Amino acid sequence: MAIGISAPQHLDPISGIRLGTTAAGIRYAGRQDLTLIALEAGTAVAGVFTRNRFRAAPVIVAERHLARGTVQALLINTGNANAGTGAEGMAAAEESCRIVAEALGCRPEEVLPFSTGVIGEVAPLAERIGAALPACAARLRPDAWIDAATAIMTTDTVAKGCSVRVALDGVHFTVTGIAKGSGMIRPDMATMLAYIATDAPLQGLALERCLHDAVERSFNRITVDGDTSTNDACILMATGKAAMDPIRTPQDPAYGRVAAAVEAVALQLAQAIVRDGEGATKFIPITVTGGRDPQECLKVAYRMAHSPLIKTAFFASDPNWGRLLAAIGAAGIDDLNVEKVQIWLGELRIVRDGARDPDYRETAGQAVMAATEIPIRVDLGRGTAEERIWTCDLSHDYVRINADYRS
Amino acid sequence: MAIGISAPQHLDPISGIRLGTTAAGIRYAGRQDLTLIALEAGTAVAGVFTRNRFRAAPVIVAERHLARGTVQALLINTGNANAGTGAEGMAAAEESCRIVAEALGCRPEEVLPFSTGVIGEVAPLAERIGAALPACAARLRPDAWIDAATAIMTTDTVAKGCSVRVALDGVHFTVTGIAKGSGMIRPDMATMLAYIATDAPLQGLALERCLHDAVERSFNRITVDGDTSTNDACILMATGKAAMDPIRTPQDPAYGRVAAAVEAVALQLAQAIVRDGEGATKFIPITVTGGRDPQECLKVAYRMAHSPLIKTAFFASDPNWGRLLAAIGAAGIDDLNVEKVQIWLGELRIVRDGARDPDYRETAGQAVMAATEIPIRVDLGRGTAEERIWTCDLSHDYVRINADYRS
Repeated sequence: MAIGISAPQHLDPISGIRLGTTAAGIRYAGRQDLTLIALEAGTAVAGVFTRNRFRAAPVIVAERHLARGTVQALLINTGNANAGTGAEGMAAAEESCRIVAEALGCRPEEVLPFSTGVIGEVAPLAERIGAALPACAARLRPDAWIDAATAIMTTDTVAKGCSVRVALDGVHFTVTGIAKGSGMIRPDMATMLAYIATDAPLQGLALERCLHDAVERSFNRITVDGDTSTNDACILMATGKAAMDPIRTPQDPAYGRVAAAVEAVALQLAQAIVRDGEGATKFIPITVTGGRDPQECLKVAYRMAHSPLIKTAFFASDPNWGRLLAAIGAAGIDDLNVEKVQIWLGELRIVRDGARDPDYRETAGQAVMAATEIPIRVDLGRGTAEERIWTCDLSHDYVRINADYRS
Repeated sequence: MAIGISAPQHLDPISGIRLGTTAAGIRYAGRQDLTLIALEAGTAVAGVFTRNRFRAAPVIVAERHLARGTVQALLINTGNANAGTGAEGMAAAEESCRIVAEALGCRPEEVLPFSTGVIGEVAPLAERIGAALPACAARLRPDAWIDAATAIMTTDTVAKGCSVRVALDGVHFTVTGIAKGSGMIRPDMATMLAYIATDAPLQGLALERCLHDAVERSFNRITVDGDTSTNDACILMATGKAAMDPIRTPQDPAYGRVAAAVEAVALQLAQAIVRDGEGATKFIPITVTGGRDPQECLKVAYRMAHSPLIKTAFFASDPNWGRLLAAIGAAGIDDLNVEKVQIWLGELRIVRDGARDPDYRETAGQAVMAATEIPIRVDLGRGTAEERIWTCDLSHDYVRINADYRS
């Protein structure tokens, strides 16, 4: 049911990175649920993690290990988020790293663990990882990105991945990313995991800035249901295998091109998450212009994106602009002059100067709403700031999926 | 489907107030959709109105008329909210007041108009009101509160009303209230209309304070879907017919008893709105204790109440405490120490010190969740502040109702 996307047919390998997957039986038997990513020595790694105050054990461990510097491997399991599991969960996350370290001949602190799935269940996680890891390690190969994109899925209906290759001054570099997540999605990251790798030689500050800017403009601009998970993370890995000079700061000449490629991959992955939002049938880009500052544009955009009344109207293909107008009015801009507000559905203006556009006809609105992609644009008539976010509708299936998830 | 309530069997008349209803055919033929409330001279009236920046025409007119002082009548129509209708809508609201004034022999500025229903449709509202108003005025009588409670319903499945009679120093006073609203409900009022009347002689500051305090502790503590409407209002009318000394300030001796009765009625009505929330199958009181201040308690409570993941879990009777924990962690308390957080479902502790309570058993949680009323209590372990709100679950029917509302 993902809107306008299908699983990737090809993802470019990144020199210096190998991936392996296996079925560890963590929650379901016979399902690929364990992914190992092995990095060649010298790969630079940066990460951003959930801002939820409840952080899953693997998030705490991954962040701590990342702060120490060198990373040799990433381990991702689905089926169990290992969140809200207390000391037992911390022990399981640490033990998982030890198991990987033993298989790959590195130190446990050089392994980053990631878990996604049901929160708060204590399960024999480390034991099952221990039993399955040798098979996973034995299968490591550079061209398994699609396998990995598939193995990290939970309620996702489609694997999400994207590659960009760029020629720069006669050499090529590549960026490949995979992601999972379709519910509990909102800014500040979500139950979302994303792994982006490049052979471009990003290092230090350049690597950090590149990741943060890309996340801010992609994963932090999407929302499915307004919830924020305890487990999400986005990791950027740079192997430096491309024949380029090291990129150490954002001022280095090649930085802009590499950062643009990373951002393009992040945006593709972020939008794919919304297009595969739980129960989603419509993909809705929301643009708010004419704000005094970006914050008020985002307030209006998210107020619309989080309104169940608007989301159900989109599900019903109902151009119920009154609900849009009510959400804008409730967005918390105290001195909003409603007579300066304009709203467009696609190219069709439906609200002019704060009231129904006299030229608007319901049949025209319905024609726009019948599409599976429905851009909304709001102009606040107050300034020059502009922001854009992406969301989806709220359908019967959203309720079904989330009411049944644990059964 | 309203949870644990049925339509009122009896509502006490308030001396000095008469009500009449009729079918004006505003949106549907043959449905009681017009209500007139006539007040005897000398009735004191106070009102609070939506904080949405988009305010429906009748809200603008009602607030303006109320500011002039004397009120002789209230007119309420369903079927059309007369919101987002620009100058034409303003003219219709003004014309409605003129029609009532003519029928009752008062001035148009002494009439408060109220509309609820679909936003943004321009319809021959004033014409239909004009045709039906004489019949409505001819039927005015003191014991028509239940008729009025029924005539103001839109997507409500049950009429909402409540009376309280209090004996005070040998005299009685009565408070009777009616309300409508079942979607687009959240603090700052909603697509909610409430009319509360008393024969107690509240005046001036005492009347204003009584209304504001009652609303703050009732209608501003409920949420169904987090949306705020363009039309909501709560009106308090005091006829002064009870044999009591005038109550002019909150310091007057009888103020406390009268204010408590008004608040009790407001709370009953507010909870009835949630119990009849669109598609609701569970009534969920949320108490947050141990906050540093009331604001952070409310932040946590509303974050839970607005989480679609939590609301669908309640619909499924699934004690998915991981979703509660994730919502608390994302509520925006930056220095929350999660290890001090406790969560109870009813009397059952499910989270102890930030993780699953070791004594908690899923079967016990499911037993609590099987009920139609499920109190949640969260202790933040940071202070002594405490707040309570009321919400409901998110069901298949919510989506159905709001996807189909205009069809």
